[in-house]
Parts: sequence; structure tokens; C-alpha cells
Amino acid sequence: MPGTTAHGARGALAFEIPTWLLDWERTLPEALRGDEAAMRVAIEAAARNVRHGTGGPFGAVVVEVASGAVAGIGINIVVSGGSSVLHAEMVAMMRAQLRVGFHKVGGADGIPMTLYTSAEPCAMCMGAIPWSGVDRVVCAATDADVRSIGFDEGDKPANWLSAYRLHGIAVSNGILRDEAVAVLRAYQTSGGVVY
Amino acid sequence: MPGTTAHGARGALAFEIPTWLLDWERTLPEALRGDEAAMRVAIEAAARNVRHGTGGPFGAVVVEVASGAVAGIGINIVVSGGSSVLHAEMVAMMRAQLRVGFHKVGGADGIPMTLYTSAEPCAMCMGAIPWSGVDRVVCAATDADVRSIGFDEGDKPANWLSAYRLHGIAVSNGILRDEAVAVLRAYQTSGGVVY
Repeated sequence: MPGTTAHGARGALAFEIPTWLLDWERTLPEALRGDEAAMRVAIEAAARNVRHGTGGPFGAVVVEVASGAVAGIGINIVVSGGSSVLHAEMVAMMRAQLRVGFHKVGGADGIPMTLYTSAEPCAMCMGAIPWSGVDRVVCAATDADVRSIGFDEGDKPANWLSAYRLHGIAVSNGILRDEAVAVLRAYQTSGGVVY
Repeated sequence: MPGTTAHGARGALAFEIPTWLLDWERTLPEALRGDEAAMRVAIEAAARNVRHGTGGPFGAVVVEVASGAVAGIGINIVVSGGSSVLHAEMVAMMRAQLRVGFHKVGGADGIPMTLYTSAEPCAMCMGAIPWSGVDRVVCAATDADVRSIGFDEGDKPANWLSAYRLHGIAVSNGILRDEAVAVLRAYQTSGGVVY
């Protein structure tokens, strides 16, 4: 195999989070109150990701419903992190799970958690959310907005909204959509990689 | 947040691969020739995962088509690794991508790669495969076999086989199905966690 990395050789499954994200998230308020405040963080993460050139125009944040505490922030680091799995939603959910030390974002007690994402999840993220412990998903830009700048969202079940409802996962769409679409357009204008 | 881990605090996205897997994979032949030889590795990984108590009865391996070289082996480490993302197929694809240092398993040159999985992918893995650089998927146990021991496969598009074909991804089903089903049954008999 060409280009065997130290990580690959050791067998560890480890991905670097950009330093700017670690620095920036320390400056955020302790609690994000209400859907718009949380979505602004997801969209601002996406915008900063584009400006820093660390990935695609997508951001996400998992928030503890009761307290408004940030459980995990994600950005798209597919290219810089070297894995197609590293969509913003996946990174946010994995970080929230690592933080709580359990394979569900709400921990063993199932504390209610909402995932805010700057754009409607692709087929992978849509399949991942019901396993993650997230109880509610809030999206800004739509599937069509994402496809309009050239990204593929994949093949989703036609009835995913009702399937989510059956799983007890609520979905809200279009929160701060214009702001999220502006980040998608900025990425397109900047000539960002579409893969 | 309860139980903040060192990993979570640092912000690194890092998961441990069980030592037995690292040790065992070093003993495998340099090249896996033919579908059955590769699938035997995926199923044996699943069986060893059950015996070691490190996760669910699922194994996967990404193989370079031309050489038969192993690019990445995965097992289900959802509970032991602490993330719902860590299905066998995801772990195999992420490890193959880390090894090659690129967000596609075939590297920047798109070397053809096949994913062998001991059971038909769930909705998350099914959405992830088209982004991963895998050109062909070979499955042993069926969706129904997996559901029969209580695991949820999630909501997949009804037409996923034809959608995969449109993406240029070939699918073969039922290779060594009986051997894979035996591992599912052994897990069920052992009282393994179904989540």
C-alpha cells in the first residue's frame, strides 16, 4: 500500500481536530439557549472552516436540551482529516460520545440531546443519527441547497421524516437557512473542493 | 457534562483498536485471493470479536482488488470504543483511509478496492460506502439475518442496489452466508448486548 502513515501502521483510529476549532470553542458561552443561538454556532463553525481552509462548508453542534451545554462541535474535515466519514454531523456526534464516555451522546442515562446542523444530513449522517442517541435534529440549509453547489447528498429513504418520527426523533427544518446558504455560496465562490 | 474523558477534553478524535485485532491481523497472509478467502477474514474477525467480548458479531475487510492486499480490517467496537459510528464497515474504511493517507480507500489514484462485510450494511454504513472510495461490496449474512437476532438495520432506500449500480458500486450477496449466520447465532447464545 502506498503512503502508509504512522497512524495506519500503529492501528490507532485517530483524527486531528483543527486547532482553530479547539481555540474558538473555548470562547463560546457555557449555554446555548434556543434553536437560533445553537444554529448560529453550527453555521459559524461552517463559515470558519471555509475561511481556515480546513474543509467543506458544513458545521454541526450537539446541545444538551435542558442546560443548553455544548456536548460536541463538528465541522467537515473529510479532506484535511483524511476520511470520508468526517462530515460535520459525524464529528459532532463522535466528539459528544467521547466526551461522555459512552456510545450514545446522552450517556447511559439518555439525557435528551439535539443535533443542530448547518445543512440537511446526507445519507450516511441520516443513517448514523438514529444510532447516536440524538433525540432531535434541527437543519438550516436544505438538501436542494447543498446539491445546488455540487455536493452529493446520497440516496436517502423517501420517507425519512416519518421514519425518524417512528424512532422518536423530531426534525425541524429551515432554521437560519439563509445564513447557512450564504456559507455554501461563499465556499462555492472561493473555489472550495467539491468531492 | 458527566464523565468528561481525557480524549474529549483535549478534543482529539481517537478510538482504540483492540490489541487482539492488531496482533491477529499481523498473522494474516500478505494477499487474500478470491471472494471466499477475503470473506473468511471478515467472518473470522467477527467471531474473534465475539469471543474477546470487544463488540458485536460483525467484521469487515477492505481489500485491494489487483493485489489482494488487506487495506483495513474492521470489527464492531460500538460499545467498547464508545461511539455508535464504530460499525465494522466504518472501522475498516477509516483504517484503510488512514493507511493510505487520503479520504478515499483507493488513495488519490483511485486504486480499485472491495469491501467484504460479514453482514449486509445498516443504513449508516450503506450511506457511507459511496463516499469511501470502495468500488464493490460483498456481503455474507443478509439484512433479515441481522434483524433476526435483534439488531436494527435502520431505514435504507428501497432501491439501494440499483442506486449503488448507478454510482458504479457492484454488490454481491450471500458469500459464506451460513458461516456468518453462525457467528450471529453464537453472539445471541452468548447473551451479547443488542443495542
